[in-house]
Amino acid sequence: MNPSISRYPVPELGDLPADLRERIVQVQEKAGFVPNVFLALAHRPAELRAFLAYHDALLLKEGGGLSKGEREMIIVATSGANNCLYCVVAHGAILRVYEKRPLLADQIAVNPRKADITPRQKAMLDFALKVTRASHEVGDADFDALRAHGFHDEDIWDIATISAFFGLSNRLANVISLRPNDEFYLMGRVPRTKKENA
Amino acid sequence: MNPSISRYPVPELGDLPADLRERIVQVQEKAGFVPNVFLALAHRPAELRAFLAYHDALLLKEGGGLSKGEREMIIVATSGANNCLYCVVAHGAILRVYEKRPLLADQIAVNPRKADITPRQKAMLDFALKVTRASHEVGDADFDALRAHGFHDEDIWDIATISAFFGLSNRLANVISLRPNDEFYLMGRVPRTKKENA
Amino acid sequence: MNPSISRYPVPELGDLPADLRERIVQVQEKAGFVPNVFLALAHRPAELRAFLAYHDALLLKEGGGLSKGEREMIIVATSGANNCLYCVVAHGAILRVYEKRPLLADQIAVNPRKADITPRQKAMLDFALKVTRASHEVGDADFDALRAHGFHDEDIWDIATISAFFGLSNRLANVISLRPNDEFYLMGRVPRTKKENA
Amino acid sequence: MNPSISRYPVPELGDLPADLRERIVQVQEKAGFVPNVFLALAHRPAELRAFLAYHDALLLKEGGGLSKGEREMIIVATSGANNCLYCVVAHGAILRVYEKRPLLADQIAVNPRKADITPRQKAMLDFALKVTRASHEVGDADFDALRAHGFHDEDIWDIATISAFFGLSNRLANVISLRPNDEFYLMGRVPRTKKENA
Amino acid sequence: MNPSISRYPVPELGDLPADLRERIVQVQEKAGFVPNVFLALAHRPAELRAFLAYHDALLLKEGGGLSKGEREMIIVATSGANNCLYCVVAHGAILRVYEKRPLLADQIAVNPRKADITPRQKAMLDFALKVTRASHEVGDADFDALRAHGFHDEDIWDIATISAFFGLSNRLANVISLRPNDEFYLMGRVPRTKKENA
Amino acid sequence: MNPSISRYPVPELGDLPADLRERIVQVQEKAGFVPNVFLALAHRPAELRAFLAYHDALLLKEGGGLSKGEREMIIVATSGANNCLYCVVAHGAILRVYEKRPLLADQIAVNPRKADITPRQKAMLDFALKVTRASHEVGDADFDALRAHGFHDEDIWDIATISAFFGLSNRLANVISLRPNDEFYLMGRVPRTKKENA
Repeated sequence: MNPSISRYPVPELGDLPADLRERIVQVQEKAGFVPNVFLALAHRPAELRAFLAYHDALLLKEGGGLSKGEREMIIVATSGANNCLYCVVAHGAILRVYEKRPLLADQIAVNPRKADITPRQKAMLDFALKVTRASHEVGDADFDALRAHGFHDEDIWDIATISAFFGLSNRLANVISLRPNDEFYLMGRVPRTKKENA
Repeated sequence: MNPSISRYPVPELGDLPADLRERIVQVQEKAGFVPNVFLALAHRPAELRAFLAYHDALLLKEGGGLSKGEREMIIVATSGANNCLYCVVAHGAILRVYEKRPLLADQIAVNPRKADITPRQKAMLDFALKVTRASHEVGDADFDALRAHGFHDEDIWDIATISAFFGLSNRLANVISLRPNDEFYLMGRVPRTKKENA
Repeated sequence: MNPSISRYPVPELGDLPADLRERIVQVQEKAGFVPNVFLALAHRPAELRAFLAYHDALLLKEGGGLSKGEREMIIVATSGANNCLYCVVAHGAILRVYEKRPLLADQIAVNPRKADITPRQKAMLDFALKVTRASHEVGDADFDALRAHGFHDEDIWDIATISAFFGLSNRLANVISLRPNDEFYLMGRVPRTKKENA
Repeated sequence: MNPSISRYPVPELGDLPADLRERIVQVQEKAGFVPNVFLALAHRPAELRAFLAYHDALLLKEGGGLSKGEREMIIVATSGANNCLYCVVAHGAILRVYEKRPLLADQIAVNPRKADITPRQKAMLDFALKVTRASHEVGDADFDALRAHGFHDEDIWDIATISAFFGLSNRLANVISLRPNDEFYLMGRVPRTKKENA
Repeated sequence: MNPSISRYPVPELGDLPADLRERIVQVQEKAGFVPNVFLALAHRPAELRAFLAYHDALLLKEGGGLSKGEREMIIVATSGANNCLYCVVAHGAILRVYEKRPLLADQIAVNPRKADITPRQKAMLDFALKVTRASHEVGDADFDALRAHGFHDEDIWDIATISAFFGLSNRLANVISLRPNDEFYLMGRVPRTKKENA
Repeated sequence: MNPSISRYPVPELGDLPADLRERIVQVQEKAGFVPNVFLALAHRPAELRAFLAYHDALLLKEGGGLSKGEREMIIVATSGANNCLYCVVAHGAILRVYEKRPLLADQIAVNPRKADITPRQKAMLDFALKVTRASHEVGDADFDALRAHGFHDEDIWDIATISAFFGLSNRLANVISLRPNDEFYLMGRVPRTKKENA
């Protein structure tokens, strides 16, 4: 018997509204499996639609000063600070795949100060963690520190909003006991060619 | 000169995409003014659309075990814990209007334990604050405590998600220094008839 | 039935020692009502006398570098940090009346960094909050920072002592569940002339 | 050269108002020296008068459920939690003298759970520390826990007010860098007869 | 160029005293590589000897109520709480190998409450985390809770001492910026036979 | 009846392995009594041997930039932060004896900022407390701050390791309720000649 992926009832893919079903099938075709967050949050279709719209606006956006890998660094660091197993494991996997660096996600989840990243990226994660833990103390000095690393104000909006959005996601995942798919744990750790040959 | 409502550029209503403009005009007609959150977040139309979709799914939903006033209590209590001026002031106003009780919002923002609310509502806010501060420690005992007060599991999802969504909103508002409209501070404090006669 | 204003027995005005009765009648004549703190603390006349003597020495003192409005800012900010409903509501009212600025008290209670105050006043409240939360870490650097804003050492004593004295008041009020008078919530929010005409 | 006892100017005994001078001389005759708190706070005579009046109301009161030694236990435990050197050292000395138990003060200052005191006294100190650190969370359950140990509600008022008053004292002492008299460190540690014979 | 494994000079294996060199060679033969902790701490041979003696007394001991996998669970959970990259990664690897369960270490490092472990093991980790964060609050109730899960007092000593010893190790590793060997990240994640065939 | 010195069985000196017995007898001859830590930890001889080896490597080492008194300052400050009664009392005694300054230990245990020590020693204790509370945040800036006071990197290793090792000791002592010998409380407080004459 498989362990439950959520405290709440999990709908069958076939029972979902067409738009959500289509989106999930697309993800499944790309990833090879359906990440549990889709099915677990589909318990509330209207909320899942809003969640995905927000997610896409932040993570699929082209341009801006943050690479896709850097956006995932923010997610992994803040999810580590919020002790969210699902997000650390799932976005840790995506980070490894994007950056093609298998050690990075574990480093950032445990202690970003010890990660193999640039000083600019450390400043980015410092700010993300401040937004996560004490957003009411954010002020001009924080903006100045990031600008000194070449971030534009629009990048700072991105860092803050990604941190804040995954703070929402972390809380939901923690409350419903969202279980990461087993597949995530190994993704991006083994070179793809080696894996395909195995 | 009016004080700025956001660190970021604030679009003119007339420059917004039609769907957002329409929505904002509707709110304006109902409230008598445009709450600053709409214009400030319209700096990022795609994100604002997702924000509003999530907001509506949580707060406009009919049915369920939480009254509209109770949902606002959750917002005020958790926004107080996150030191978010915009959300405490704006949702404090809405709470006063919904509940027609002018003292409630200040009580809940400062210390829910001293508020004129029922034990069931205090349990609801205790849980909302735990989700806000330590969601990774939420477990079966928290669900049992809420069930003992007659909450269904779907209500618990609502409490958690409203807390988590406004945690996102609090962080955004704190980072962009979102300023509450002056109108909110007095809303619901003075009996409406008296005000109209004045 | 009126809600209780304290966990402890509340004496009748007529049963109080003459000196306390006189003082309370004076306040009543000026404010139009008896603030609950007087009657609730009169449960212990000797302690109330000391409390009032301390209060008066700090708040009625003429001269010095802190205006009466600034002293109330300190009280509101530190009482917010201590989650004291009575002091936030009662001194918020006094602050609004003194400063004739209806928004200020809510701003300072929720997040002084977002309040419409001067950098000098923000430095004053930063120090007041440090005294409140970590007085053992106060040192020369804190004195220097305040002097740079033009505060004299005697002003710093005032800021520290007002913070410390209302820390005492906050703890008492929280333990005895001291209830703010309903009158405080609206005081200073509506222009006085308008109110008198209503 | 003697080290300074306060950041602020310290008045000469002879320059003080007669009432304060008399009080201090009385203390000096009894203790054999003038505790530094008197001279340092005499920088503000009106405040010192209020301070002494409050102090006396709480600590010199006859009757009630708290022995004088127990009142000092509360002071030492909460002053330890507030990292106040003056109060730990001075009231630690008084506690040793009152209880005639030389080890007690150090135990309570470092960790009351490991002190040689009764379960009732541990409950008393648990409550005192809650008032010190999180008075806004004090509620009925705390009162019930103390009543189960035989405390009356008036005793609970005493515990709370002593904790709160010395929280004020701790903050003042920390900010002005009040230095304990050297005499306090050894008081009550050596049996009096042995000392007199030495 | 390889990244540095420590802020401090790292001795060559050949330059070490014979006893340490022998021990390290043994480990190397068993693990296939020299874990960086050995070389980095060998900067201080006398301290490394004591470190290894303590380590062995706790982790190589036969008998007792804690399996070798459970001892590693304690290390991973407490090292996660202390944000120690080296210990989470290295002991996470050992935990996966001992328990032959590739998901367990990541679960325990991020949030033990969500790990696939028994209620008894969760109680064990709750206690380990309390020792890590607030050992001064440990008392009889904690012992009773563990006994209720079948732990003997000697097991409780083991849990506490393993937590405390790795708290030492976590602090050292954090201060010297001890870098985990790359090999640890993948150990125990891929079935051994598959790896050998690859 | 003497109070118990540990929650766990305490071996008789005569029942201990010869090496431990010899060591303890040596200490007894020097100090005039057997410090309880020896007998209590002798419940686990292998662990005690490692403990003593680590202890000696850190505290008996000749040379280096930290005097023996300074090493004890580190122990007293960090044990105060960890609320460890045994270590504050026992090492406070040793600190008084080494430095021949009877006030120092109480000052450092309660608030190192108010102690009669040099700025260099205050920087040393600031770092020791950071290692104790947030070692994962230690970084280059902390090393630079200590180097500015003349500390070499080897001294910094010493400060960190002494803090970390006594963090282990504090946790053990707290969990087993290790009781300080009565003798420690007075040691170093009274001039030796006076005591001998008494």
